[in-house]
Amino acid sequence: MVETVDSDFRDDVGLPTCGNDTAGVAIQLRDKREIVDNTLRKLLAQYIETDSGLGESIKYTLEAPGKRLRSAMVLWCCEVASGSVNSDAEIAAAAIEMVHTYSLVHDDLPAMDNDDLRRGRPTCHKAFDEATAILTGDALLTLAFEVLAEQISDPVIALKLIQRLAHEAGLSGMVAGQMADLKAQNSAGTRELIEFIHTNKTAKMFRCATAMGAICGRANDAQLAALCEYGLKVGLGFQIADDILDASATSEHLGKTAGKDVKTGKVTYLKLLGMEKSKLLAKKLADEAIAALQPFGKEADILRQLAAALLQRTR
Amino acid sequence: MVETVDSDFRDDVGLPTCGNDTAGVAIQLRDKREIVDNTLRKLLAQYIETDSGLGESIKYTLEAPGKRLRSAMVLWCCEVASGSVNSDAEIAAAAIEMVHTYSLVHDDLPAMDNDDLRRGRPTCHKAFDEATAILTGDALLTLAFEVLAEQISDPVIALKLIQRLAHEAGLSGMVAGQMADLKAQNSAGTRELIEFIHTNKTAKMFRCATAMGAICGRANDAQLAALCEYGLKVGLGFQIADDILDASATSEHLGKTAGKDVKTGKVTYLKLLGMEKSKLLAKKLADEAIAALQPFGKEADILRQLAAALLQRTR
Repeated sequence: MVETVDSDFRDDVGLPTCGNDTAGVAIQLRDKREIVDNTLRKLLAQYIETDSGLGESIKYTLEAPGKRLRSAMVLWCCEVASGSVNSDAEIAAAAIEMVHTYSLVHDDLPAMDNDDLRRGRPTCHKAFDEATAILTGDALLTLAFEVLAEQISDPVIALKLIQRLAHEAGLSGMVAGQMADLKAQNSAGTRELIEFIHTNKTAKMFRCATAMGAICGRANDAQLAALCEYGLKVGLGFQIADDILDASATSEHLGKTAGKDVKTGKVTYLKLLGMEKSKLLAKKLADEAIAALQPFGKEADILRQLAAALLQRTR
Repeated sequence: MVETVDSDFRDDVGLPTCGNDTAGVAIQLRDKREIVDNTLRKLLAQYIETDSGLGESIKYTLEAPGKRLRSAMVLWCCEVASGSVNSDAEIAAAAIEMVHTYSLVHDDLPAMDNDDLRRGRPTCHKAFDEATAILTGDALLTLAFEVLAEQISDPVIALKLIQRLAHEAGLSGMVAGQMADLKAQNSAGTRELIEFIHTNKTAKMFRCATAMGAICGRANDAQLAALCEYGLKVGLGFQIADDILDASATSEHLGKTAGKDVKTGKVTYLKLLGMEKSKLLAKKLADEAIAALQPFGKEADILRQLAAALLQRTR
């Protein structure tokens, strides 16, 4: 009997309600999301002190219904490399979700992207205030490193995870991408600049997720390199799909403000190449992501299906 | 021949220009500051990529003339525990300076303490803009963990340092203290609340510094505990001295805005106990810090002198 997944959930994560592959991805994503949510709940119960003053805002942002894509990719890549999810991968998945959430909280601030809506709810600085949002982001970023330092079974693995996360999320990755994105607003936007922004702002965190999963699954160097390449390409395709959705979907459906890229003068492929060529580029990146998985057999089918499904997502 | 330290430097770090003990502290602080500054310069040359867009703001904030007290304490405590400064301690000192600087950059933001002046220069969001300041803080915090994960000789030591820094700087320490400080503005302010704020906002980062130095110096458990207790007490005394200076010195001399605590309705011992009792409390904390050093001999004299000198600082 084929397991089914309720259409509410598929709609929730933006996967279309028809097609066998996307159905398979939706079922597995639901299962992985449950693991991530449980791990986050356990960690928050352990780490949030009653008098920290930030428990409420941290829970509000971290427990909002995100897609958990990056954290699910940690779990999947651990499975692909080792045959199963282990407790290190659960912690690594929670850590990357904390860093992703901190980046959303800070990016939404008035001085940054100035957004009111995120994951279908008022953004952190709207639900609380700006100071709380700044400190909530700071606390989440710090907590990610704290749990990796304390909860991973092997010190060498823990250090590799911390090194990878800090490198991809910081000056050599996400933070630099966000800075470039802000600076580029209302500029002409060359293809080179857009590639720099997408690579750093988005794709490196996807690569970080696949690398962390591979590290937790004790992947060999060739497997690690293949999963890194896959993560990078999927991330690049994801960002183009995101820009397409921004232009074509409603805020209510997306759970975040739609139509913002044009309004704020963001540089995107859509603006540079138009809709059809952008869709073709996203498809090409998904194909390249799938091609990177060549060293793997059937065990990586979920990652192949994911690369294809992400092109069809509706939010 | 007694080494001398030019009065410019002593004035710069706020140590009075008379008294043998404070002269000794000033000389040693100058030497330690040189080590910290050199390490920071080397790390920035290695880690700042030309296209990160944040190189300028990071250098601006990190290379501003700070006292380097916390980072010097890392070096001193390594020396006390092991007889000399090692390269691990140099990295740990640079990492805590990055975290301290990130906290200043974020605390100075308009939504937080809204300050225009820091270390004698316009604050980061004034010299650049708010978005740059938010991302500069984020990058510095992330970089601290990256350098600890990559540059420490022994994985077990690296993990201990990361764990300690994340714990004291995050939800169980500095971030919680800053949140409580903001929330307490214009409240009556009980002694318990002020103690919570001072402990978390300030003293835990001093304790973190002494602990990190002890860890780098391979201190035994008793030494580590003594240096932690010393760090906590020195930090508590430091914050009271800071509040006293805020009320009694000029902005020009402090290099940051003076008289802010009354204006913003901060809860302080000064407000609760008055000037004389606050000074007595700071003195009592310095005495307790010195008493905590009982397991150590002459090798800890610099720490004893520091505890006393900090009461007399003028900025």
